[in-house]
Amino acid sequence: MIIKTPTKFFLVSGSSEGFSLLNAFDGALLASGVGDTNLVKMSSILPPGCEEIKPPPVPMPQGALVPTAYASLCSDVPGEVISAAVAIGIPRDPNRAGLIMEYSARAEESAVVEKVKKMVEKGMELRSRAIKDIMAISSTRKVVTIGAVFAAVVLWD
Amino acid sequence: MIIKTPTKFFLVSGSSEGFSLLNAFDGALLASGVGDTNLVKMSSILPPGCEEIKPPPVPMPQGALVPTAYASLCSDVPGEVISAAVAIGIPRDPNRAGLIMEYSARAEESAVVEKVKKMVEKGMELRSRAIKDIMAISSTRKVVTIGAVFAAVVLWD
Amino acid sequence: MIIKTPTKFFLVSGSSEGFSLLNAFDGALLASGVGDTNLVKMSSILPPGCEEIKPPPVPMPQGALVPTAYASLCSDVPGEVISAAVAIGIPRDPNRAGLIMEYSARAEESAVVEKVKKMVEKGMELRSRAIKDIMAISSTRKVVTIGAVFAAVVLWD
Repeated sequence: MIIKTPTKFFLVSGSSEGFSLLNAFDGALLASGVGDTNLVKMSSILPPGCEEIKPPPVPMPQGALVPTAYASLCSDVPGEVISAAVAIGIPRDPNRAGLIMEYSARAEESAVVEKVKKMVEKGMELRSRAIKDIMAISSTRKVVTIGAVFAAVVLWD
Repeated sequence: MIIKTPTKFFLVSGSSEGFSLLNAFDGALLASGVGDTNLVKMSSILPPGCEEIKPPPVPMPQGALVPTAYASLCSDVPGEVISAAVAIGIPRDPNRAGLIMEYSARAEESAVVEKVKKMVEKGMELRSRAIKDIMAISSTRKVVTIGAVFAAVVLWD
Repeated sequence: MIIKTPTKFFLVSGSSEGFSLLNAFDGALLASGVGDTNLVKMSSILPPGCEEIKPPPVPMPQGALVPTAYASLCSDVPGEVISAAVAIGIPRDPNRAGLIMEYSARAEESAVVEKVKKMVEKGMELRSRAIKDIMAISSTRKVVTIGAVFAAVVLWD
């Protein structure tokens, strides 16, 4: 392996308004507690035996490169409701990988959370992998001017 | 260098239907044999001397962070034909980097493969770098409900 | 940390025409001097104490995996003006992280640079972090057939 496989993870979420779409996204990262790190987006597997850290390290080491599976949505439509959620399917067998799913939409938080959990169920079903537990975290916002929502599984070591 | 430069690579492709666009993408990764890893998308160079592994490691280490150049396309338009392809220009001079190109479209597989190979030729031309060989892999699907196609060059060590 | 935190950085930018949108992007990377590396996109923090390298290493090690914050835009609309810019807010306190912002638009270079600098100011304001300096780099092009612009902060070690 080129990059070390992570052994820890934590869930975070947050939302923000901002001067631009990217500033709103940056604000949502800050609100989530990962604002001064470098997120590297990845497709969405929880390594076997990866353990939850609770609470997450605060502050995170500034500028660290952090592999993250995340959902986010930015909007500059005032009044629009935006929501983002991630869910993890924890397998019954600790030697198997967990599955992370991300979903965001111009929709209510409850609908987005329900959908992302269903996505995890379907993905674990496809793997014929029994689920021990589904964890989820989400964020929602009614946009004032320019807003962003963010929800993430952060991998760590 | 911050991350070790890869020394091996392999080509994979696959397609799937799924419950959501992301589930279809996840299914296409599983069908390709890289479904339980964490793909980190990168722009698209084959390091000099990088050697093909054939067949690829099965199963891949679960949850590993894997630098990958990939093309993919998801669609929820029943009946639509979607195709994805990647190609690598292997240079005549083994001390030079190879070039990876990705292309996907709502089009027949043959057209997408032809285009991605042409993209490699043009990119190698721009580098004044003679081509020894062009490798390609592709995937296509006529969408039933929600479908995804995926083709990738996975870097490895 | 899973991936080593970078200690050096440099700014690059460039633009190009190309056979396809991705070829134009690839040409813009070559024009910037990072064309034979594997860029890994990340969200946008300059680690504390990260030092500028000037000039950047030429050539870069071929195929190296390089964490990069970048703005880019591709267009196949002949005559269209496209511009991309990145800016870094260097904090007065050297123990704090800097903030990188990216912006691209179908607009004049000066407007894009002005906006991305403003984005940095607002983001540093949100952190209550005094700015010592704002660095920026940009690229612009009037598209002939298919064109791309690229501007980046490349992290290095």
